[in-house]
Amino acid sequence: MRLVRYGRPGKEKPGMFDEEGRLRDLSGVITDIDASVLSERALKKLAKVDYKTLPLVRGNPRFGVPVAGSRKFIGIGMNYADHAAETGAAVPKEPIFFSKAITCLSGPDDPVVLPPGAKKTDWEVELGVIIGAKAQYVDEKDALKYVAGYCVVNDVSERAFQFERGSQWDKGKGCDTFGPVGPFLVTKDEIFDVQDLDLYMELNGKRMQTGNTGNMVFTVAQIVSYLSRFMTLEPGDIICTGTPPGVGMGRSPQRFLKKGDQLRLGIAGLGEQQQEVVAYSKA
Amino acid sequence: MRLVRYGRPGKEKPGMFDEEGRLRDLSGVITDIDASVLSERALKKLAKVDYKTLPLVRGNPRFGVPVAGSRKFIGIGMNYADHAAETGAAVPKEPIFFSKAITCLSGPDDPVVLPPGAKKTDWEVELGVIIGAKAQYVDEKDALKYVAGYCVVNDVSERAFQFERGSQWDKGKGCDTFGPVGPFLVTKDEIFDVQDLDLYMELNGKRMQTGNTGNMVFTVAQIVSYLSRFMTLEPGDIICTGTPPGVGMGRSPQRFLKKGDQLRLGIAGLGEQQQEVVAYSKA
Repeated sequence: MRLVRYGRPGKEKPGMFDEEGRLRDLSGVITDIDASVLSERALKKLAKVDYKTLPLVRGNPRFGVPVAGSRKFIGIGMNYADHAAETGAAVPKEPIFFSKAITCLSGPDDPVVLPPGAKKTDWEVELGVIIGAKAQYVDEKDALKYVAGYCVVNDVSERAFQFERGSQWDKGKGCDTFGPVGPFLVTKDEIFDVQDLDLYMELNGKRMQTGNTGNMVFTVAQIVSYLSRFMTLEPGDIICTGTPPGVGMGRSPQRFLKKGDQLRLGIAGLGEQQQEVVAYSKA
Repeated sequence: MRLVRYGRPGKEKPGMFDEEGRLRDLSGVITDIDASVLSERALKKLAKVDYKTLPLVRGNPRFGVPVAGSRKFIGIGMNYADHAAETGAAVPKEPIFFSKAITCLSGPDDPVVLPPGAKKTDWEVELGVIIGAKAQYVDEKDALKYVAGYCVVNDVSERAFQFERGSQWDKGKGCDTFGPVGPFLVTKDEIFDVQDLDLYMELNGKRMQTGNTGNMVFTVAQIVSYLSRFMTLEPGDIICTGTPPGVGMGRSPQRFLKKGDQLRLGIAGLGEQQQEVVAYSKA
């Protein structure tokens, strides 16, 4: 299934795209796409609904983050060897992780806001993993059982905040709008091999990042297993799994985001995001 | 007010300690101590309730985290110059922050569980700040307006995970039970000067940490203002503001937590926590 949450910010309704690519409303079946529908059993039940009975949604609604109520948003660092090289970092011996403030979650096509003082805001297309079941100390061979599905994430990062204001990366990872997620939560049954998905990211129509999840240093299963040894993962938690090469920081000359820039990024089978970069203005 | 949440894990009820130090039930007045009661206005309204009309709670119930529904749990690092010195770190030029996984939140007297593979689990008594209103880019002079109250936090830290498994401290900060908070949320009107509070921590009856919040490198107001430039703070967010010297890592010889250890820690006016250290066992 390709599950979505559509509608105005904070008022999103659950929906799904049917086999013909039409958006249908799930409000009559579930209240939201949240922890309660992410278990294997609940997703199987949802898959049995005859989609033809669901109302079609008219127009082109906004999409929100395709899962509600997430409590953790974890990022994996330097998980593509060629990206580590472009940033001058060594390939890690074990996963590096950091946290994105939960308040940075943003719809897939919502604007990316440059925070006041930002000088080096950068893009990062990443495979997102949405947890479906509580995971504590799970083995790698079992780890994918705890995954509900996958999504596109732009792990927007202010490099000056991340690297030049102390040692802890969280500082550059959690500004508002730094976490576009979606449009779809694609359930894992639809993905033949999560370690063979093409990723791309374009800036103003020009290709910047091209990658494949086959080049990850640590696989999704390894990441889920690893994280579950340092914290309990819960249904709805979102993990972004690192970015392939081509970020602004790694280019020569470096290129960071400016007001008016247009981002387009996606992953094969998981859909596409489009964001405009805007300046901060006081709400 | 000294607000608490009491009862079994996940079933806590709201309560308050009255002027005579007796626990009274607030269930008839509010559903929980959560974002909805943390605003200045809501707290003022709650303070007007005639506490003598509230039912007394019998026995000695367990206490939970004194605020429900927190979405962020942020730690400040190296915020006491003498603690920075004992760990061999420089005093930071601006606040260092990291994230504690929200799932590590734990009642103030609940056991601290040593995670599998832990070798250097350490204690850190800290002043906790509970946010009362949404804070974005707030000035230092206004910052305390966004604070609902204060609490005791034990920022339990696995030093081997924090420092020897890569660069990002989050790895050693978010294991289950690594975030005892409480017993009280003491509303800020009860605290004459938050930068003059004594902190202490004892291991098996022996004093390990002695400090005063007057020795913070960055004040609570500076921290709230600073954080609000990197993320939006929301009601219920918890910030622990760094630890004074005397952690196990800083002792000679080093002393880390072992099964059976008894911790007692507190802050003047904010109450006391007591934890037993236990080994991990599969639930």
